[in-house]
Amino acid sequence: MASLPEPITSLIAALGRLPGIGPRSAERIALHVVQSEAPSVKELARLLVAAREKIGECSACGALTEQQPCEICRDPRRDGSLICVVERPVDILSIERPATYRGRFHVLGGKISPLNGIGPEDLRIASLEARLGNEKIQEIIIALSSDVEGDATSFYLAQRLGRKNVKVTRIAHGLPVGSGLEFADGLTLSKAIEGRRPLA
Amino acid sequence: MASLPEPITSLIAALGRLPGIGPRSAERIALHVVQSEAPSVKELARLLVAAREKIGECSACGALTEQQPCEICRDPRRDGSLICVVERPVDILSIERPATYRGRFHVLGGKISPLNGIGPEDLRIASLEARLGNEKIQEIIIALSSDVEGDATSFYLAQRLGRKNVKVTRIAHGLPVGSGLEFADGLTLSKAIEGRRPLA
Repeated sequence: MASLPEPITSLIAALGRLPGIGPRSAERIALHVVQSEAPSVKELARLLVAAREKIGECSACGALTEQQPCEICRDPRRDGSLICVVERPVDILSIERPATYRGRFHVLGGKISPLNGIGPEDLRIASLEARLGNEKIQEIIIALSSDVEGDATSFYLAQRLGRKNVKVTRIAHGLPVGSGLEFADGLTLSKAIEGRRPLA
Repeated sequence: MASLPEPITSLIAALGRLPGIGPRSAERIALHVVQSEAPSVKELARLLVAAREKIGECSACGALTEQQPCEICRDPRRDGSLICVVERPVDILSIERPATYRGRFHVLGGKISPLNGIGPEDLRIASLEARLGNEKIQEIIIALSSDVEGDATSFYLAQRLGRKNVKVTRIAHGLPVGSGLEFADGLTLSKAIEGRRPLA
């Protein structure tokens, strides 16, 4: 032998293509699977296919959803004048977690990155502009990460959307609440000083 | 929303039950899956079920195999007088890797561990004794790990099998080849000195 049977090696190869799964953990999972109860393996296979088949992008905002449009876009209690622009569908979860934001969302699907061949036309910007025409949007809050590409994309959006008679803002970057100055890196500290606000 | 759609949360829960997959990586994999091409997800599901259905334990040695008996047990070029006893089916791969061992194997399926309620009757010891009766076995090489349970199981096997007119040996524990004394831990060094062999 000197090698595992083919059904296991094929499974290891497929598992190894999932994000965050290296060759060792793919092997560990595959060996676990072949020694598991058959019904639990079938159930996992069924859930994989079901999730892929049932979940799609919201036609309005791009969030992951089972129904069209998604729950947030359908919710009449949401403030339709506020749109928060995020990079990926998961980012919505982060902003929803504290349950303080009451507006809607728009998923960009990425950031402008000339090095990776991603231009503005590859992002969901045209559909955001279309929403500006159809919905009563007053403010667009950009919640992209604060790296080179996030900054560039934010400035690009501010310029392009600023012409459409809508307020464009960006979430604040600064010290995490409850954290002292001694734990902050230099960049965060500069951002915190740059973004200072009057106290009274 | 504030939460992911149900098909995704169910998938995350199922993925989180796999070995080495925490909640964060389960979420990452699930989100990757719902945004992947449908055929690749179906293929992964198919491979999971196929591996579970096609792979079983070799009726003779307990290795993972598609056919009965396994490739090694069927191979007439293998030395049938030598049996290497390992804990898990994967351990066979480790011993096969250098391609120097030419005997057969026997998978014990665990180690004696009173704390975890695993006694000799829970391991594949009876089938090993049966092989001693049916096959022309001259030597049993125990290749269990060198921890408390591995040591206890090895001594138990040596006692129980020693009565059957078969030589029982254990693989050597000592310094890894190419590694200096300065990198060895105390236990390994004591084992290395204990297991010293005459040079000439």
